[in-house]
Amino acid sequence: MAKIAILGFGTVGSGVLEVCRRNAAAIARRAGEPVEVKAILDVRDFSDSPDAALFTKDIQDILSDPEIKVVVETIGGTKYAYPYVRQCLESGRSVCTSNKEMVATYGAELLALAKAHNAAFLFEASVGGGTPIITPMHQCLAANHISEIQGIVNGTTNFMLTKMKRENMDFDQALKIAQQLGYAETKDPGDDVDGRDACRKIAILGSLACGHHLYPDNIPTRGIRDITVADVKAADQLDCAIKLIAWYREGEKGTVAAGVEPMLVPSANQLAGVDDVFNAVLMKGDMLGDVIFYGKGAGKLPTASAVVADVIDALKEGSKIHDSLFWQPAEKLDGMLTDDTSYPYYIRATGLSGAVLTSIAGPGSLVFENEREAACLVNSATAAEMQALAGKIALLGGQAALVLKKLPE
Amino acid sequence: MAKIAILGFGTVGSGVLEVCRRNAAAIARRAGEPVEVKAILDVRDFSDSPDAALFTKDIQDILSDPEIKVVVETIGGTKYAYPYVRQCLESGRSVCTSNKEMVATYGAELLALAKAHNAAFLFEASVGGGTPIITPMHQCLAANHISEIQGIVNGTTNFMLTKMKRENMDFDQALKIAQQLGYAETKDPGDDVDGRDACRKIAILGSLACGHHLYPDNIPTRGIRDITVADVKAADQLDCAIKLIAWYREGEKGTVAAGVEPMLVPSANQLAGVDDVFNAVLMKGDMLGDVIFYGKGAGKLPTASAVVADVIDALKEGSKIHDSLFWQPAEKLDGMLTDDTSYPYYIRATGLSGAVLTSIAGPGSLVFENEREAACLVNSATAAEMQALAGKIALLGGQAALVLKKLPE
Repeated sequence: MAKIAILGFGTVGSGVLEVCRRNAAAIARRAGEPVEVKAILDVRDFSDSPDAALFTKDIQDILSDPEIKVVVETIGGTKYAYPYVRQCLESGRSVCTSNKEMVATYGAELLALAKAHNAAFLFEASVGGGTPIITPMHQCLAANHISEIQGIVNGTTNFMLTKMKRENMDFDQALKIAQQLGYAETKDPGDDVDGRDACRKIAILGSLACGHHLYPDNIPTRGIRDITVADVKAADQLDCAIKLIAWYREGEKGTVAAGVEPMLVPSANQLAGVDDVFNAVLMKGDMLGDVIFYGKGAGKLPTASAVVADVIDALKEGSKIHDSLFWQPAEKLDGMLTDDTSYPYYIRATGLSGAVLTSIAGPGSLVFENEREAACLVNSATAAEMQALAGKIALLGGQAALVLKKLPE
Repeated sequence: MAKIAILGFGTVGSGVLEVCRRNAAAIARRAGEPVEVKAILDVRDFSDSPDAALFTKDIQDILSDPEIKVVVETIGGTKYAYPYVRQCLESGRSVCTSNKEMVATYGAELLALAKAHNAAFLFEASVGGGTPIITPMHQCLAANHISEIQGIVNGTTNFMLTKMKRENMDFDQALKIAQQLGYAETKDPGDDVDGRDACRKIAILGSLACGHHLYPDNIPTRGIRDITVADVKAADQLDCAIKLIAWYREGEKGTVAAGVEPMLVPSANQLAGVDDVFNAVLMKGDMLGDVIFYGKGAGKLPTASAVVADVIDALKEGSKIHDSLFWQPAEKLDGMLTDDTSYPYYIRATGLSGAVLTSIAGPGSLVFENEREAACLVNSATAAEMQALAGKIALLGGQAALVLKKLPE
């Protein structure tokens, strides 16, 4: 019988208990022994719960229990999670977490700490919810060099963009529905709609791809607040969908770039058809070519099932299979991880006519125009060139309201 | 330095050598030590090769070399591969293979043999070429019960069906191009076009899902020879694509069913957009919901990179992570693994009018009709009911020329 503990009994934490119980037989078969949740840490009162006896408010109860071999961390954030996880790893216990903020911020340090104490630090559930991404990436793609990653990794914004497209909704209406359904936070939906959640996830995938820590602070991040119904319609007219894309790419001489931004995705691109709360991550391996992982990006049981899969792996003691799930610490950059490749761009500007916009946008074509604003597609430009174009627009008394890269088919 | 051997220096085997050399540094980092190909078994003469010193025609040279820890099997077929792999496993060496025929036929026995000798028997490359499917399935989905699998797992037929759809080609023309491009065998393309290759792959995935061996012989298998240009057009008219689907599903009380057959896939279904030589496998986990693995299903380097990833895993000795990559032996069934669920069906019949066809097909609608044949869509029927319908058509002097299940959206 393997004993585990859960830190944080919120949505995912309670899901872990539920998955362990509902699929107990299958889990026992795969882990080689039954898996039992012996203790749950949560500051709230659960004395009325049928599992009241499992709860504690004191991390020491878990750290001092020699039976507990693996600890699940589902508190979220870093304030409590980070010191608790450190203590667990220092005590030689393996930790399995769904906490992307902690992994994106302290991943290199916690991986090194795990290694130093012969423990595993696993975080499959931190990207893609229940969709397998991290394990296939570091095990199955181990013979590949991964040069590029593009992903739809935030289910909330993808749900909103799908609503906006299918039902002609504007951003505020779509956000309201996402909040009503519990997909977006009511108080502050910024982690999702401003791209911070996606930024943490690409920081994790990028770190694993290049082998050193990429800090979320260094990754230029934009959300979807500026997307209007007119943009969504214009995209449709261009046979594209607007998607919030988290991307990573390797440049010349080992440089890397990463970002989170809404993009035009041509409908022939596999990512264009990823709708609602689904996530998809595309990776390019030098031997393999393109591979895509697709599934529900969030939800209590999907995410919990990924955490429990990590628990099963962590329980197989003596395993060296996770040695390669690792990246080196790195200094924070002074600047940002920017990409100087040329792409086609969609630009919408207010306060200037379509004719003027296309005349200064270089080779490009008008997409739409009304009394207030105009949008055009620029054939090929770098981010710096688009910055310069925005400057020209401002000189002419207009304003660049939205700039979107267009992905290849 | 870890030493390995390759059995069979064909497309995949030579790709393994190439991947090991081209990505030597990354592989060494992930395996914890450099990986070197020390011996290659092949019956052909390679004395002119720059690697002539590596070649042998005698398996004993490999079995008697204590330095060789892991053996790659890429001979294909079972005649030589099976006894050689047995000998390697019995000698305590781990084996990594891309050989779906051998895994589908002898998987349970070889997995048990590996376990008995503390070795690993790994076969990620046997399904999906380089696309990670088996490892994510048995590790990442370990906390899930997998009730259903649907996959496009044969790149050759998917390429042909894509050609037929996009370029109005018939089966013979599409096959010719597939043969010219080296996707289909020139002599006997039957393994691909008659579904045998897909059958072996779903036998492997189904065995892993249900935990006991499913024999390819028990899986009803149909290929794509009967698909005409008219069918492809009719499918398009119904907003569907025709795809060769390998499927597995669990029925009541632990029964399982599996099959390989062309189906109508509605364009809103994620599998409909999987074109050319790409493969995609959809799995339903009870906790996770749908997850899809998508990538290039074949090719020298993609497949070889999956074999090398298995080699890296196998080299991590003492790992118990593969304990759960296992299924039990099972007796061959007397009957077939058939499904008695109702689906909408497309049926094309010759020698009878559209009016007669729809009148006997129960609630259904005519799809097309010409002087020679007619096709209609039956709203809902079981396979047995469709058999009965084919009988009625024959009684009326006609013939059921093609019957296709339609997948849900």
